[in-house]
Amino acid sequence: MNYVEVCFSPADYPLYRENFELVVVIDVLRATSAICTALENGVDRIKPVASVTEAQQWQAEGFIGAAERNGEIVEGFDLGNSPLAYIERADELKGKTVVLTTTNGTKAIDIASEKNRVVIGSLNNLNAICNWLVEQDENILILGSGWKDKFNLEDTICAGAIADQLIESGRFKADEDSTVAAKFIYRSARDNMFAFLRASSHRRRLRRLNLNEDVKYCLTPNNLSTIPILEDGFLVRLEETGSKNSVEKESALRSENEA
Amino acid sequence: MNYVEVCFSPADYPLYRENFELVVVIDVLRATSAICTALENGVDRIKPVASVTEAQQWQAEGFIGAAERNGEIVEGFDLGNSPLAYIERADELKGKTVVLTTTNGTKAIDIASEKNRVVIGSLNNLNAICNWLVEQDENILILGSGWKDKFNLEDTICAGAIADQLIESGRFKADEDSTVAAKFIYRSARDNMFAFLRASSHRRRLRRLNLNEDVKYCLTPNNLSTIPILEDGFLVRLEETGSKNSVEKESALRSENEA
Repeated sequence: MNYVEVCFSPADYPLYRENFELVVVIDVLRATSAICTALENGVDRIKPVASVTEAQQWQAEGFIGAAERNGEIVEGFDLGNSPLAYIERADELKGKTVVLTTTNGTKAIDIASEKNRVVIGSLNNLNAICNWLVEQDENILILGSGWKDKFNLEDTICAGAIADQLIESGRFKADEDSTVAAKFIYRSARDNMFAFLRASSHRRRLRRLNLNEDVKYCLTPNNLSTIPILEDGFLVRLEETGSKNSVEKESALRSENEA
Repeated sequence: MNYVEVCFSPADYPLYRENFELVVVIDVLRATSAICTALENGVDRIKPVASVTEAQQWQAEGFIGAAERNGEIVEGFDLGNSPLAYIERADELKGKTVVLTTTNGTKAIDIASEKNRVVIGSLNNLNAICNWLVEQDENILILGSGWKDKFNLEDTICAGAIADQLIESGRFKADEDSTVAAKFIYRSARDNMFAFLRASSHRRRLRRLNLNEDVKYCLTPNNLSTIPILEDGFLVRLEETGSKNSVEKESALRSENEA
């Protein structure tokens, strides 16, 4: 039987990384929710980068720039990590490539990119990603993005939800206390996540920025079916036939678009 | 109002250490439970050291040596971190100084020793330490020892129990998600900790070593009233009149003993 384990934050990643070649990155508020939403709503590819400088460089080369720090859009960009913005501007963004940098999420993706496969999880695509993960015959590490390397509640709840489904399938087991705790916190929170997260530090941070609509959206399970996967430095839609085929299809599609 | 926050493990300590000069170190299974038990049962002082080599050096100078790695007593020592051993051998250890090194707990004490005051918490002395902490007018950091730098359940439950009592007193508040999570896990676990910890990785580790009696003891709340405090590199009993007086009393007592 394979293992599914939860790592709370990028700072803990070196303690957990061994024996995993498939990593699920979570940043519920809001980077991975935004990535899933953008790809489901027509964005072609997302280039996740760790720094604002890198985002500026790719923006200068023609990509749509998106940058967030501390909950706010960075000066010089007109997109950040609000999933609702990717829905509102879907027509304009359709078929485009977006370069994205965020406080926590893109850093976690960067750290995990050393592994064979990196996929993107959120509450929005919860069942879709669980259904796919359960078919993968290998150990799975779920990496929360945390807040500036610290543990956070919303990523832990989402990680616990994924671990719970995989363990319940009977095909995975968990050995780490972090996984037991995440699963337990999820089970207690699932019936009323919005109330449960009242005390969350990051939700309080976003409330100050009037982002309650975004928070409600990010805490809505299963309104999306897209599974983003990292291929050659770009996040693209994973097709159900598997990641390799997906890449071929993506490039075929891109050639068509460019033609 | 002052803050009380929970840090899950020594690896996370650099992220949380700022703004605290009073740290409570927790290693429920079993270092801090053993330290509280030893001092309550007559051991005079405990010298916590990070390495086995240091423990050997102090042992050579006449201290009673105690060393544990991976749940077992280290070769060349006849004491480890079993609290029950300190009760069974109370007559022999009375008035003595013990040098102690353990896998996780003494490492956490070592890291926290940069701060003004370091006290030792366990479930055994839960109410005693909470009653004392609630009177301290300063920010309090509760540091779990974890398992080899990873999060563990039993330290988090104990840390959550302390945070819960301090917040309920109305004199402390919490801002970190780790504190919210620890408090929540404690509240769910408190009525049946032994069952709750069935899934804990460290308890499984100890079960393999036939240490169930030790585990039951360590999960027994409030059977001790001693609060160990670090003074000049030694853990001694904190007297109720405060740590400064305690040191004077301790040295007075020691002079008497030596006379």
